[in-house]
Amino acid sequence: MSLKPKRTVAELKELRALTGDENGAQRVAWSDTWLKAREWFTSKLTGLPVEEHYDAAGNHWVTLPGESEKALLIGGHLDSVPNGGWLDGALNVLAGLEILRRVNYERGHDRGHEFRGRPPVTIRLVDWADEEGARFGRSLLGSSAFAGTATIAADRVRTDREGTRMEDALRRCGVEIDRFHEATAEQANAGAYIELHIEQGPVLERMGLPLGVVLGTKGVERHAITFHGQEAHSGSTPMNARRDALAACAKLALEIRAIAGKHPDAVCTMGSVKTFPGIVTAVVGRCEATLDQRDLDAGTLAMMLREARKASERFAAEERCTVDWSRIWQIEPIAFDARMIELCDEAVRETAGRSHRMPSGPLHDAAEVSRAGIPTVMMFVQSLGGISHNKVEDTREEHLELAVRAFDGLASKAIAHLS
Amino acid sequence: MSLKPKRTVAELKELRALTGDENGAQRVAWSDTWLKAREWFTSKLTGLPVEEHYDAAGNHWVTLPGESEKALLIGGHLDSVPNGGWLDGALNVLAGLEILRRVNYERGHDRGHEFRGRPPVTIRLVDWADEEGARFGRSLLGSSAFAGTATIAADRVRTDREGTRMEDALRRCGVEIDRFHEATAEQANAGAYIELHIEQGPVLERMGLPLGVVLGTKGVERHAITFHGQEAHSGSTPMNARRDALAACAKLALEIRAIAGKHPDAVCTMGSVKTFPGIVTAVVGRCEATLDQRDLDAGTLAMMLREARKASERFAAEERCTVDWSRIWQIEPIAFDARMIELCDEAVRETAGRSHRMPSGPLHDAAEVSRAGIPTVMMFVQSLGGISHNKVEDTREEHLELAVRAFDGLASKAIAHLS
Repeated sequence: MSLKPKRTVAELKELRALTGDENGAQRVAWSDTWLKAREWFTSKLTGLPVEEHYDAAGNHWVTLPGESEKALLIGGHLDSVPNGGWLDGALNVLAGLEILRRVNYERGHDRGHEFRGRPPVTIRLVDWADEEGARFGRSLLGSSAFAGTATIAADRVRTDREGTRMEDALRRCGVEIDRFHEATAEQANAGAYIELHIEQGPVLERMGLPLGVVLGTKGVERHAITFHGQEAHSGSTPMNARRDALAACAKLALEIRAIAGKHPDAVCTMGSVKTFPGIVTAVVGRCEATLDQRDLDAGTLAMMLREARKASERFAAEERCTVDWSRIWQIEPIAFDARMIELCDEAVRETAGRSHRMPSGPLHDAAEVSRAGIPTVMMFVQSLGGISHNKVEDTREEHLELAVRAFDGLASKAIAHLS
Repeated sequence: MSLKPKRTVAELKELRALTGDENGAQRVAWSDTWLKAREWFTSKLTGLPVEEHYDAAGNHWVTLPGESEKALLIGGHLDSVPNGGWLDGALNVLAGLEILRRVNYERGHDRGHEFRGRPPVTIRLVDWADEEGARFGRSLLGSSAFAGTATIAADRVRTDREGTRMEDALRRCGVEIDRFHEATAEQANAGAYIELHIEQGPVLERMGLPLGVVLGTKGVERHAITFHGQEAHSGSTPMNARRDALAACAKLALEIRAIAGKHPDAVCTMGSVKTFPGIVTAVVGRCEATLDQRDLDAGTLAMMLREARKASERFAAEERCTVDWSRIWQIEPIAFDARMIELCDEAVRETAGRSHRMPSGPLHDAAEVSRAGIPTVMMFVQSLGGISHNKVEDTREEHLELAVRAFDGLASKAIAHLS
């Protein structure tokens, strides 16, 4: 048997033991532990007839040449958030490695088969640099350089908590931010991109399905909202004389659920609320909140933003407060390739019997690759409890093995499609 | 004219210039600036035939002996919060000083009158130590020592932000916490206690009244409330799969207004909300809030607490969260003396034409004095915008003068009552 999904699980555990501690995975990009993980991964390539190099953005490319230069790209990322999980990103890389081994095996290097030469198309596995953005707050760094959407001017001056500049941290790892644009050269001959990832949400588990097909990544509108009322003494200010900024914000915290609820896959989240002065004896004079809204449809996303803004103004008026909005970040919805979605759906059904198509709320490197115009799809495997970015992140081992199998099936279909 | 209310205003400004800066009053108890304020106050006593001393809790007593040892106590506090207002506490002390001067004047030290000897009862002005509790979080410190309600064991180990222990800060000012109980000796012969204070709320201003009579201080129930939900990714967690601790808390933030609204003078305040992890990309897994509830009626207060707790449990259940309560602090409602309230009401009507009776939401030293069984009443003067504990705290000068006049009238009535 050429494909060994159990080996992928064993290697994930090996990586966890090497780069995790009692608090979880510690492979934060540009750290020594991350470099150690990459070194370990390189050691796993021994014996495979691959070319490998790091591009100008620090992405690690492993190429198994095919008859054609046209390439199937397979991506993942070894970096993690601090105290992260053992699967997020690493599963993708190691499943991709298993596919390289399987394809290489089928070249005829096993005992029984005749030598069948190179695969019909080139297969390139990429370990993207700094998907998480955990240290400098800039996620999808390497893949955005690849896609040509990197924002160097804004990013180079970012600093981590210790005040280290992003530019300096990258230089230490041999990456010059000024040469980021050169990473777009890796797009040459790319015919398709596939990525396997844990779902990081509860949908598949709730449906009792091990695997799903990702339709694209949701667009995101992320805003800071500040309600301004009047700080006042909690003991001496009658209820009807108050201008309570928290009350206005509380109304919005509840209303966003109704706004999201009109659309099947939309989500709206108030993740942070801060009260000022924030003491037990004062009516809240200022309340700062964050709002994160996501949907796969750009029109729905825009409508939800309008509705939330209008609601916030209504609530501010009701509480005799005012409200300010400022955009933190946004990204448009990115729909994956229709043909690739079909191939992925077939692969999932052939392996697991049933499939489910769903958008991804979290962003992934696949979004950047898709922005570069490369036909892209992602496959999700069930997450237990929907928890990720945490040491308790987990997926049942039989599901991990099933995922490797289905992902390999998708690779075969993509290779056939590109041939 | 013996009583000079304009002098009180001038002295308040003098004190502000001496102990304030561009951010407001800086007379935090046990600080050098506070000691400077007390020294300045002592200098104002020159020429008055008074005995003065500090008691075991650092309260400053200024006694004008009368024919009877029975004493009218007049209280205030020179200490302020950091960046405080110019009136809170200091008005009381300086209005009391003006009363001492007026009474002394009437002894016959003016040109036209014959010498009339001592006043019929002893008059004692007290500058309470550390009313605000700004540095160590323990308000009404000096007056609680006087009342015998001090909680030495709990208080002595309190520390300020720099880690200085309360015990050491007091010792530096000549106060030994172990001798606090000796301050109860000052209760001897006390026949009544009166205190003038700015309202620190908007009620009198909204009614167009300069002065009011305080019925007592509201009881307070102060709790920390924590909702426990499930932290989850804002992008990958469907709305119906969430256990959003913020949503449960937001419902309570709105419900407490209905709970308070059933009672005319009751207030409920959620002054602080903290979200965890508190990031834009995560559903709130834990939400910590504070609740401050006040009413003059103990039964109402207990009912409001029960209702808030029940509501919190209902909201927690609705959001599939749990909720914990822990009491931060409580004090029972303290009703002032019925006869003293009548005297105060007369004095206000005689001076300002109209009076208004109201409870005090904020606590005052008068509450502790009342707990000691001494017939007590307070008079309020209008606050502009209801703002205090802030450099913009203010009251119209004509209202301050009116207040000194009415407070002096109350003193005369109390003296007559005790004679």
